[in-house]
Amino acid sequence: MALIVQKFGGTSVGTVERIEQVADKVKKFREAGDDLVVVLSAMSGETNRLIELAKQISDQPVPRELDVIVSTGEQVTIALLAMALIKRGVPAVSYTGNQVRILTDSAHNKARILQIDDQKIRADLKAGRVVVVAGFQGVDEHGSITTLGRGGSDTTGVALAAALKADECQIYTDVDGVYTTDPRVVSQAQRLDKITFEEMLEMASLGSKVLQIRAVEFAGKYNVPLRVLHSFQEGPGTLITIDEEESMEQPIISGIAFNRDEAKLTIRGVPDTPGVAFGILGPISAANIEVDMIVQNVSHDNTTDFTFTVHRNDYDKAQKVLGETALKLNAREVIGDTKIAKVSIVGVGMRSHAGVASRMFEALAKESINIQMISTSEIKVSVVIEEKYLELAVRALHTAFELDAPSRQGE
Amino acid sequence: MALIVQKFGGTSVGTVERIEQVADKVKKFREAGDDLVVVLSAMSGETNRLIELAKQISDQPVPRELDVIVSTGEQVTIALLAMALIKRGVPAVSYTGNQVRILTDSAHNKARILQIDDQKIRADLKAGRVVVVAGFQGVDEHGSITTLGRGGSDTTGVALAAALKADECQIYTDVDGVYTTDPRVVSQAQRLDKITFEEMLEMASLGSKVLQIRAVEFAGKYNVPLRVLHSFQEGPGTLITIDEEESMEQPIISGIAFNRDEAKLTIRGVPDTPGVAFGILGPISAANIEVDMIVQNVSHDNTTDFTFTVHRNDYDKAQKVLGETALKLNAREVIGDTKIAKVSIVGVGMRSHAGVASRMFEALAKESINIQMISTSEIKVSVVIEEKYLELAVRALHTAFELDAPSRQGE
Repeated sequence: MALIVQKFGGTSVGTVERIEQVADKVKKFREAGDDLVVVLSAMSGETNRLIELAKQISDQPVPRELDVIVSTGEQVTIALLAMALIKRGVPAVSYTGNQVRILTDSAHNKARILQIDDQKIRADLKAGRVVVVAGFQGVDEHGSITTLGRGGSDTTGVALAAALKADECQIYTDVDGVYTTDPRVVSQAQRLDKITFEEMLEMASLGSKVLQIRAVEFAGKYNVPLRVLHSFQEGPGTLITIDEEESMEQPIISGIAFNRDEAKLTIRGVPDTPGVAFGILGPISAANIEVDMIVQNVSHDNTTDFTFTVHRNDYDKAQKVLGETALKLNAREVIGDTKIAKVSIVGVGMRSHAGVASRMFEALAKESINIQMISTSEIKVSVVIEEKYLELAVRALHTAFELDAPSRQGE
Repeated sequence: MALIVQKFGGTSVGTVERIEQVADKVKKFREAGDDLVVVLSAMSGETNRLIELAKQISDQPVPRELDVIVSTGEQVTIALLAMALIKRGVPAVSYTGNQVRILTDSAHNKARILQIDDQKIRADLKAGRVVVVAGFQGVDEHGSITTLGRGGSDTTGVALAAALKADECQIYTDVDGVYTTDPRVVSQAQRLDKITFEEMLEMASLGSKVLQIRAVEFAGKYNVPLRVLHSFQEGPGTLITIDEEESMEQPIISGIAFNRDEAKLTIRGVPDTPGVAFGILGPISAANIEVDMIVQNVSHDNTTDFTFTVHRNDYDKAQKVLGETALKLNAREVIGDTKIAKVSIVGVGMRSHAGVASRMFEALAKESINIQMISTSEIKVSVVIEEKYLELAVRALHTAFELDAPSRQGE
């Protein structure tokens, strides 16, 4: 008999009909003998509705009070599911974050979980009840309601699984697993049976928005086996787990991630002196602009070129800030490009395989795709290319790294 | 500096604009130097919306889980008002019933308040904050959310005022006070400056639906001065308080209540033996039908007639039950009438004034209104008459007992 934490997101509980379907699913697991803790988000759209309501009172709602309002979203869904389970003859009980109790810090709207009291839940499980817990919320030491920030329900699920030492934390969503790349771009994309936490982190941060990054980090830290599954379709999903001993069969790379939300900025001809990187990125950071890739190459003539990428929405702001910096540093010029895309190959396998990067560059070269920037980590190689080549690049890499689904190859 | 508990109902917080108006009002009181605890209902319609949602899952929603859902209604309004106050520079904090903590029994959907912890509220008041509390809800000893049942926000207000020994509990509503009778029926009806708890109970239970009966009982028991005021109009309202020494000026009766929701049933010619009343009303009660007036007159020929009133909605059911009883008791017949109305005069003054009832009967006789049933209590005389005479009777009594507004007499 396994102890499983199951998390269902907003679209999975978006209507009463969907909640009934979730209840059917939970009942089936219960009947198979598993102990179940179910974590729910608010009905899709509800959190936004509540935030809008608060914004009618104030553009900058008081964070403590905003949490009081938005936390009602999950409070409704947990009780509805508990009712639906009881209607099916499955004993169930709902708990808010406060009732569990999920203790967080007092950083309202983006609180972090400090501790989870597992006593009530264990007692209920022992009594044969399914425990339905509100995701995304907790309570601070003063008894004030807190929320974990967007996507926090995944984190609640993982944290509960860690606290309860659950056998698995299942995240039900609208995709049936993690794919080698986006199936809309590469029809031969394959669902992965397994992926490591590290790979998942790289995939997630690169735009495969299946799981909240924080939840994956949390799962990795506490070694909670995490499984991504489709809410209403059968299937094994994708298991996200620790990096087991690398077997012969392990592919060199697990997937190809991409992102077309970025823009590139270059400041040319800056004096190559200590502190120049901070001189350039300090003002960008002070303007609250997040920087992704940063590349600085070796200098020539004692000056260097410095390139970084930002979210496209921040491009204009970043360009203005950089222009001021250029004047101050007596730089030659500032150039930028919004028509770029980032493509990354991700895989723990590349740690022990030489030549992975060159194989990537070769595949791109074969398609005459020019590489504008390169950045690498231990389990990832990212390149920036012209946006129009994105699909071509992803498909070429998917084939080059032998990720294409064999059964669908001939389609 | 007074400590005042103010309660605003669903229509007073029905929209964001209304909540802003309530915030303006609270701010004004705060600036006048009062310490304030504000109790709120859910936005009007919201509780019904939430119940409907639950009923989509189950016709008979699990009471514990239903409370989890419906309690979110007030949770939203308290945070919105706290935000609106803070926006106005008035320090404020919101608390759910659980956060206060308002301890209740575990009778979900109709819980009773057992105890209120006043520590947090006192600390906040001392720190200069307005405390905004969710009405209608509490928490039981197991930490489960409970609700007090419909209209329970009035009860929360009174209970908080009692626990805090507040100087006054103000109930803001959509009328500007308690009237001598319904102004829609008698244009000379006057707002009462004062009324006793006992009178208010009789008025309320007879259909002057200004305050929840439970709240009035509670206020009377703990001697909390209760004031009914209009949410958005200025005015002193009506103070509901203990029966002070009767002064010369005290009117004999305070008001005239009426009710056209009842129907009358008579079982004729039942044997006048011990236990016959139970034999008749036992089955009615077993069928979950509430009985209001009961009249049994002296017998003749060892049989008697037994008459009682029920809510019109229960008339058909009651008639069927009574028909079966009649067969069993060998009664002569069962007759009934749904076209009746009950009119009552209410006033603590009648305790010390003889002839109040006869003055009532005289006034009705003058208008040729036949009295079908009579029932009296220490501070009330009720009669049942034909429904079509209702308005005439109320106006005649209003004049006979000198309740007409002098200033409006000539209108």
